[in-house]
Amino acid sequence: MSSIKIPRHADHDYTYAAADERRQFIQNQTGADLSHTSQYSFDPAILPGNIENFTGVVQMPLGFAGPLLVNGEHASGDFYVPMATTEGTLVASYSRGMGLTRAAGGVKTTVVDDAMQRSPVFAFEDARGARDFALWVTENFAGIKAAAETTTSSGKLRNIEQYPASRMLYLRFNFTTGDAAGQNMCGKAAYTACQWIIANYQGQMSHYFLSGNMDTDKKHSQLNTLHSRGKRVIAEVTLPRALLLEKMRTTPEKMYAARRTSQLGGLMAGAVHNGVHTANGIASVFIATGQDEANVAESHASLVYAEITPAGDYYYSVTLPSLIVATYGGGTGLATQKECLQVMDCYGAGKVRKLAEIIAATILCGEVSLGAAVVSEEWVSSHDELGRNRP
Amino acid sequence: MSSIKIPRHADHDYTYAAADERRQFIQNQTGADLSHTSQYSFDPAILPGNIENFTGVVQMPLGFAGPLLVNGEHASGDFYVPMATTEGTLVASYSRGMGLTRAAGGVKTTVVDDAMQRSPVFAFEDARGARDFALWVTENFAGIKAAAETTTSSGKLRNIEQYPASRMLYLRFNFTTGDAAGQNMCGKAAYTACQWIIANYQGQMSHYFLSGNMDTDKKHSQLNTLHSRGKRVIAEVTLPRALLLEKMRTTPEKMYAARRTSQLGGLMAGAVHNGVHTANGIASVFIATGQDEANVAESHASLVYAEITPAGDYYYSVTLPSLIVATYGGGTGLATQKECLQVMDCYGAGKVRKLAEIIAATILCGEVSLGAAVVSEEWVSSHDELGRNRP
Amino acid sequence: MSSIKIPRHADHDYTYAAADERRQFIQNQTGADLSHTSQYSFDPAILPGNIENFTGVVQMPLGFAGPLLVNGEHASGDFYVPMATTEGTLVASYSRGMGLTRAAGGVKTTVVDDAMQRSPVFAFEDARGARDFALWVTENFAGIKAAAETTTSSGKLRNIEQYPASRMLYLRFNFTTGDAAGQNMCGKAAYTACQWIIANYQGQMSHYFLSGNMDTDKKHSQLNTLHSRGKRVIAEVTLPRALLLEKMRTTPEKMYAARRTSQLGGLMAGAVHNGVHTANGIASVFIATGQDEANVAESHASLVYAEITPAGDYYYSVTLPSLIVATYGGGTGLATQKECLQVMDCYGAGKVRKLAEIIAATILCGEVSLGAAVVSEEWVSSHDELGRNRP
Amino acid sequence: MSSIKIPRHADHDYTYAAADERRQFIQNQTGADLSHTSQYSFDPAILPGNIENFTGVVQMPLGFAGPLLVNGEHASGDFYVPMATTEGTLVASYSRGMGLTRAAGGVKTTVVDDAMQRSPVFAFEDARGARDFALWVTENFAGIKAAAETTTSSGKLRNIEQYPASRMLYLRFNFTTGDAAGQNMCGKAAYTACQWIIANYQGQMSHYFLSGNMDTDKKHSQLNTLHSRGKRVIAEVTLPRALLLEKMRTTPEKMYAARRTSQLGGLMAGAVHNGVHTANGIASVFIATGQDEANVAESHASLVYAEITPAGDYYYSVTLPSLIVATYGGGTGLATQKECLQVMDCYGAGKVRKLAEIIAATILCGEVSLGAAVVSEEWVSSHDELGRNRP
Repeated sequence: MSSIKIPRHADHDYTYAAADERRQFIQNQTGADLSHTSQYSFDPAILPGNIENFTGVVQMPLGFAGPLLVNGEHASGDFYVPMATTEGTLVASYSRGMGLTRAAGGVKTTVVDDAMQRSPVFAFEDARGARDFALWVTENFAGIKAAAETTTSSGKLRNIEQYPASRMLYLRFNFTTGDAAGQNMCGKAAYTACQWIIANYQGQMSHYFLSGNMDTDKKHSQLNTLHSRGKRVIAEVTLPRALLLEKMRTTPEKMYAARRTSQLGGLMAGAVHNGVHTANGIASVFIATGQDEANVAESHASLVYAEITPAGDYYYSVTLPSLIVATYGGGTGLATQKECLQVMDCYGAGKVRKLAEIIAATILCGEVSLGAAVVSEEWVSSHDELGRNRP
Repeated sequence: MSSIKIPRHADHDYTYAAADERRQFIQNQTGADLSHTSQYSFDPAILPGNIENFTGVVQMPLGFAGPLLVNGEHASGDFYVPMATTEGTLVASYSRGMGLTRAAGGVKTTVVDDAMQRSPVFAFEDARGARDFALWVTENFAGIKAAAETTTSSGKLRNIEQYPASRMLYLRFNFTTGDAAGQNMCGKAAYTACQWIIANYQGQMSHYFLSGNMDTDKKHSQLNTLHSRGKRVIAEVTLPRALLLEKMRTTPEKMYAARRTSQLGGLMAGAVHNGVHTANGIASVFIATGQDEANVAESHASLVYAEITPAGDYYYSVTLPSLIVATYGGGTGLATQKECLQVMDCYGAGKVRKLAEIIAATILCGEVSLGAAVVSEEWVSSHDELGRNRP
Repeated sequence: MSSIKIPRHADHDYTYAAADERRQFIQNQTGADLSHTSQYSFDPAILPGNIENFTGVVQMPLGFAGPLLVNGEHASGDFYVPMATTEGTLVASYSRGMGLTRAAGGVKTTVVDDAMQRSPVFAFEDARGARDFALWVTENFAGIKAAAETTTSSGKLRNIEQYPASRMLYLRFNFTTGDAAGQNMCGKAAYTACQWIIANYQGQMSHYFLSGNMDTDKKHSQLNTLHSRGKRVIAEVTLPRALLLEKMRTTPEKMYAARRTSQLGGLMAGAVHNGVHTANGIASVFIATGQDEANVAESHASLVYAEITPAGDYYYSVTLPSLIVATYGGGTGLATQKECLQVMDCYGAGKVRKLAEIIAATILCGEVSLGAAVVSEEWVSSHDELGRNRP
Repeated sequence: MSSIKIPRHADHDYTYAAADERRQFIQNQTGADLSHTSQYSFDPAILPGNIENFTGVVQMPLGFAGPLLVNGEHASGDFYVPMATTEGTLVASYSRGMGLTRAAGGVKTTVVDDAMQRSPVFAFEDARGARDFALWVTENFAGIKAAAETTTSSGKLRNIEQYPASRMLYLRFNFTTGDAAGQNMCGKAAYTACQWIIANYQGQMSHYFLSGNMDTDKKHSQLNTLHSRGKRVIAEVTLPRALLLEKMRTTPEKMYAARRTSQLGGLMAGAVHNGVHTANGIASVFIATGQDEANVAESHASLVYAEITPAGDYYYSVTLPSLIVATYGGGTGLATQKECLQVMDCYGAGKVRKLAEIIAATILCGEVSLGAAVVSEEWVSSHDELGRNRP
């Protein structure tokens, strides 16, 4: 059966040779040609921790949107935002929104929460056993925290939420994780904390699982919207009426009417958020900057709130309750991803909130851009023009 | 202000020169070095319809998982699945699950529904106006369908769902779209259908919007889970008890106990689906094969159903109710993406259900792999070993 | 152990004597005095089908709100609405809203859908078995319908929705049920239809359950909001600005601002509907008119849509997607409940849509009344005055 | 217009005479006969705070289910549970479940949380204003608490949750409320606390509303399921296999198979909880004991968790996360309602957790009873026999 097994090597797996061997193997097995995927500009030696069975690269087209004017506490000034996408009109639409908000004085951004989670669950003989344990956890927070933090220099256990149900107690550990996204850091720290708990808890306990799913890793949840996952960041802008008319050929009233109607549709459909197309911006910036691309599932959540001001202008805000981003670790250090981060001066230590602010501002620009396009009926025609490859 | 504007050209924007001009511009503006992103192996002339402001590429590491044994109606036999990711352990984990299901005889796959939507909304003086219109739409389906289909050769209007609320009628147009994902095809067809409706409806109507949000484009919704979006595809396997013990060092009972507990956690958290980490597989295959990466938001939905059979084996199934995929159009024709599709013989006409089946089988493998790892506590240690770059 | 068993008799259980025997029993067992609950004005002989172990009655205080001016298709003119409640301010608040809408010309009401469900589920060897069965169900609708309708003269099987997942097919049978709520009628009809299906389907089938929970009986669901359960009825009104100022000391702008803010709160909280306190009106009218009181869980769902009109007035609408009501059968024929229905000329055949319209109009009045009170800060003070017993 | 106005009197509105005057008025206006509703056994003078426009009573049939054996911390021993309903089979079904659990040794009950909420929202110039305020609220908790508690002797402000979105901060005040349900107590206390906040906060603030809807009063929400509303109470039982066979003619395996299938149906339908028919028990006990009947909307939420034990028995638990109950105030002191509470020795001070435990145990009995009936196909036949009035 060895002939069908993808070649792998214990000692030199992250080399040009190993990648090439795999490329040959796949080509032989399938008859496909991999001449483009085999062209990359970096040494595979940087890849351990990012991928297994490395064979080459996917070349995702990259465009820049901007300039985006951000008035943040961590990001301030004009930025060019890297977006990797294959969807025509996406970069153009975000750019259009950036032009609009720039003319309005820029997007104000604020990070209001910041934590990453792992949520073990503990089972007991009955609900009272779980309740006893809940009290113990509260009383022994210092010990649990100390145990968790032995595994990491940058992660700190901030607090533990408790959710009792049946004879289980679900815990939700909230960590601050510095400039990393931190899911694995949290997993390891929670694991060690759980070992400490098991060793020290004198009461009866049936069993435990490292995740009881209340971290809702890789999926959207109401809990994340309520209590945040990653960064909770808010972007705001007030768009002058005259500017909307001039640049977008629409009015606050028209835009708001469309929002109002579409919110009812979303409520009826059971849509998980009330934004327009946040996932577009999230996904393309995530790919460009080396974020975990699966986190689009969690990070696309948004709470949009808009109102027509007494002066007749259009206040628009986007709250991203679970934006999972990093400027260190994961894919952020890869060749092209690092360059994309550096374009925004967002690579490395002390930059993660800056990146969160830029992304939130970007998302807001995409929302107002598409929101305006829908009401001015430019939507279909711009896809006709720019989206040639999109049947 | 021209100095801050990203260079763009009406006539030769998709050229090496234009891309290079933009690269220089971004480098000048930001001081960043873009030497890696500027290395790509294809002619930018293929890019119109996929991106604007093209400047270079992001090199996403690509690994293959497999062989995956699929017993589908469109996909049959062994496949090597391209996964583009920066998350360590992902390819290894899916590969492990593929090995397990292959030893169990392969994954059975079935496509049970297939449609893409656009959902215009029409407003009236009152709810009765909307109700009158609803009857008219039913009676005039043939006319609406004919109008919609003037815009496309491959899209067919299959049926129209109706959702009345307040003085509006929300319609949900279901199209079959051949081998394309079809969002834009549907948008254009729906637009033309709406123009026909407006021209032909004699009753009173206040206004309409091309989307009332009940297509829930780029976001998860319960409606999609109920009525599908893209492909609804089901993957099934029965894992022999002995095999689980041998390969995963666990039992059906242990795996099911973890599922049961985690389902309660997910219900309490308001998680939108009851799978484990579907988004990981969806995102990495989507990027590798040129799918719209933002559709991870919709496509990560899943309905997992497992049971211990009377014989003591483990039946496991994953239903993906809104898998949005294409084998033609969009990013599928790009250099590396096309190669990745060709590895599975999934590029071009008549291949989209085959791709859907392979992806569903892949997702199932990832679910059982992580599900087993969690209970055998290998989870943390495998991340320790393979996830070096993941703080 | 017979001493602790509540007395029951096969042949004369619904008599004064049997009720009194039970009362004595409970008094003896518990030492409680049941002198009030033993006072009722009707013959227990009417109770079979409504309760077991009948011992007496709970006297729910009854007030009338109104006059309520309804401009419906089935209900037209002024109505006095019976509300049974123990919550101070409730009747007063609804009455206040009725006064307001009456001054505005009355509430327009429209029934747009009408069906009751039972949802059996069928399981197969695999998803393809379920898909085969789905086709068979579509082709054999006439036979299924005929079988179902042998059990009832008033229930008609309108259509069957199909929801495939894993190796199951969930069906949702939609019946029209005349003037009855019809849950049991549907249960019996579906049961007989399922027996016919099992007898006639030649394909492989593992097992079936009469309910696969997609009727979501006695609980709220998104599916009900989408596809209705019971009546889908819409109430609308346009409140003149001057009237709001005069009667409620508020403006459309203030009311809308509160709604906008509270909608965001509800979205963040994962609230299942965007109304204010629909459950208050639903519950009190349900109890007064002999509806199944547990259906408050399903029927309290609402879709509120409001807008400030170009003229500056306040358009307000309430869509009740799952209002489960009857004017015949169940508790509607009991002594006091029948009287309450007769006050609105809503007892018996051909009245159920009239009742649905009156309830929808009532709910709307309660929503605008509390909505206005909240912004004019009368809320707390009116509870202080009218809610003395409500700590 | 006075002829159409329901008579009301400032000084003697809660008298036999005033009630009779209204009865005559309604009869004259509508031609209906109200001879049954006018028969009640108590003096209307007790009604202020419970109803306005009092005209008579609705006589809800009352039956007792039991004996119910509860092994609680507040409720211990056998109870007869008063249920007011018009739905045939309800009392019989709950009684059957009580017989089953009694034979299994009784239902263990545990109260794990207890709080009532009011959730004001404060708006600011921007998100940073809201964030500043959030810090201030944390720092000034003592002052806020002191202000809130000036309004009530039994209500205590336990903690304040904070939810930032856009330029608003939503607060969720958690109060303990003694033996009252406490919604109004919380409203008044929160109002006074907000006045104190406004008087003392030096920062900029735009406006506030007493409810931003995150108390989700009178509607189900995920937030309530997570953080409780009223009592969070858990009922547990282990049903021996032999007992299930003997009494219910079914097995743990059959019951679990139905649950597993119905859970998938509920997930697909977007059902808000995974119980069977909790609303039946909640509603009927609520009406019997003078609880706010509209709270069925919130209180019907449940988290059911069941498993087959290694010994082959059936562990079954129901977690009620938002059970809103009182043994004092509201409708609890009314004539029949008080008697019903006294049957369980649950009227007045120090009894509310006891009542919560009895209700939770009752709900569990109804769940296992219907759960067993569904699989043994007795469901349809028992409705046929007992549900004669239920078309």
